[in-house]
Amino acid sequence: MSKTVIYEVEVMFSDCDPAGIVFFANFSKWMDASSLNFFVQCGIPPWRELVKTEGIIGTPLLEIHTKFSVSATYGERLQIHTSIEEWGRKTILQRHIIKRGDTLICNGTERRALCIKHPDDPDRFKAIEIPDWFKQRCT
Amino acid sequence: MSKTVIYEVEVMFSDCDPAGIVFFANFSKWMDASSLNFFVQCGIPPWRELVKTEGIIGTPLLEIHTKFSVSATYGERLQIHTSIEEWGRKTILQRHIIKRGDTLICNGTERRALCIKHPDDPDRFKAIEIPDWFKQRCT
Amino acid sequence: MSKTVIYEVEVMFSDCDPAGIVFFANFSKWMDASSLNFFVQCGIPPWRELVKTEGIIGTPLLEIHTKFSVSATYGERLQIHTSIEEWGRKTILQRHIIKRGDTLICNGTERRALCIKHPDDPDRFKAIEIPDWFKQRCT
Amino acid sequence: MSKTVIYEVEVMFSDCDPAGIVFFANFSKWMDASSLNFFVQCGIPPWRELVKTEGIIGTPLLEIHTKFSVSATYGERLQIHTSIEEWGRKTILQRHIIKRGDTLICNGTERRALCIKHPDDPDRFKAIEIPDWFKQRCT
Repeated sequence: MSKTVIYEVEVMFSDCDPAGIVFFANFSKWMDASSLNFFVQCGIPPWRELVKTEGIIGTPLLEIHTKFSVSATYGERLQIHTSIEEWGRKTILQRHIIKRGDTLICNGTERRALCIKHPDDPDRFKAIEIPDWFKQRCT
Repeated sequence: MSKTVIYEVEVMFSDCDPAGIVFFANFSKWMDASSLNFFVQCGIPPWRELVKTEGIIGTPLLEIHTKFSVSATYGERLQIHTSIEEWGRKTILQRHIIKRGDTLICNGTERRALCIKHPDDPDRFKAIEIPDWFKQRCT
Repeated sequence: MSKTVIYEVEVMFSDCDPAGIVFFANFSKWMDASSLNFFVQCGIPPWRELVKTEGIIGTPLLEIHTKFSVSATYGERLQIHTSIEEWGRKTILQRHIIKRGDTLICNGTERRALCIKHPDDPDRFKAIEIPDWFKQRCT
Repeated sequence: MSKTVIYEVEVMFSDCDPAGIVFFANFSKWMDASSLNFFVQCGIPPWRELVKTEGIIGTPLLEIHTKFSVSATYGERLQIHTSIEEWGRKTILQRHIIKRGDTLICNGTERRALCIKHPDDPDRFKAIEIPDWFKQRCT
């Protein structure tokens, strides 16, 4: 059984667009924050620490997929329910379900790679196999 | 054959995250801008006009799906190649391919509904059938 | 004596720039959220309600001024201490002090006008005298 | 006489808030982009290069001050006119005037420090005296 960690955000006025509703890309932003919060709650240090000890710079996105059900607006509190749906050798599939209480707002997945700085070019990244200690903390 | 409209953005420092690369949700933001630019280039008035004449408030997102290939950073110019892949009765599937010259950065689709304010509740939206004049201008 | 209302935010990864610190314009975003939270905590309805009952669309900014002391980064919780420093006839001067516990992060003011839609042109705004009921709730 | 460099942005739908106008913090974002563009146009390499050759990580903000005159909305093109108003020993005062053609939208200043990583703690920054070569390129 997978762990689920809930991250909460309060929608700000500036998160909303001229239609008066949350601009959809902010849901992706919050899923990303909830992804990182998931790792931190599982005992993974923040990337700025991990880059020093393990060379790991973070978990860049490979693919996202989200379905939007109901709009949300400022002043509302939303809960992002985050879990890991699938471990690949070098990738992690996270699911994020955003709710306002019992109401489903949107439902998405993110496929991520665990990356280090590329040994040949520090400006590029290189995916590595997910280490066992990483996987163990997250499950 | 479908029309393709290209929208260009210059990546700002603040579009990038602590890894030094474009934060992925900004690609969604730019696809959205390119989606609107597509409609405007096809002769659709901006939503703030169309809401007055036709009651149409815009094209809220139903679903997004994006694959990320190569990262981008500030100072770079990116081109978003936007086209309509499929017309549903009430929905529009747009494809957005973001490139830096010949390099593919990411490739995504957005499924959108064409909406008016709900007749029973102006705080809600209601999808309508895509009018012929709308479809004709876009093809 | 002026009321002070505290609004808390958690810094997200995507709020930070390639230097690894909060991009400064996000402090303005959070001051704005804290400004609105101040009014709501004082019993002012959200603008989307107030526009229907009083025609008031919100409190657009006339001027901002912020001094930055210490940087902040993702994972940290910040507190925005918001109060009203001065009532003009048609303007409100709010002060926002952002802290991380006892550490001062930045300190700013916002001068705002209370606005309705312009009677001659609904696309423009018009500042009105601050009503007594508004002032009374906020003090 | 000071150099003035003009940076242009096109306002996106998502840059606007539920009032239908540009959310004010985005003007700060664009001033920041115009600040960096000013330096690049003057022949200063991007920070990600300069950190390698000179250790300079960028020009963090010390203080901002902006007056807002007229609102702007999506689909409009804005020009940011950027110049250096004053050189301090360790600080730079930039002025940014945002216009839509001849119409003044807002007018602001940014006080910035030129910073390197702190020799005692790479997580902190340290302001340095502005080098002559830096000043010469910018004037």
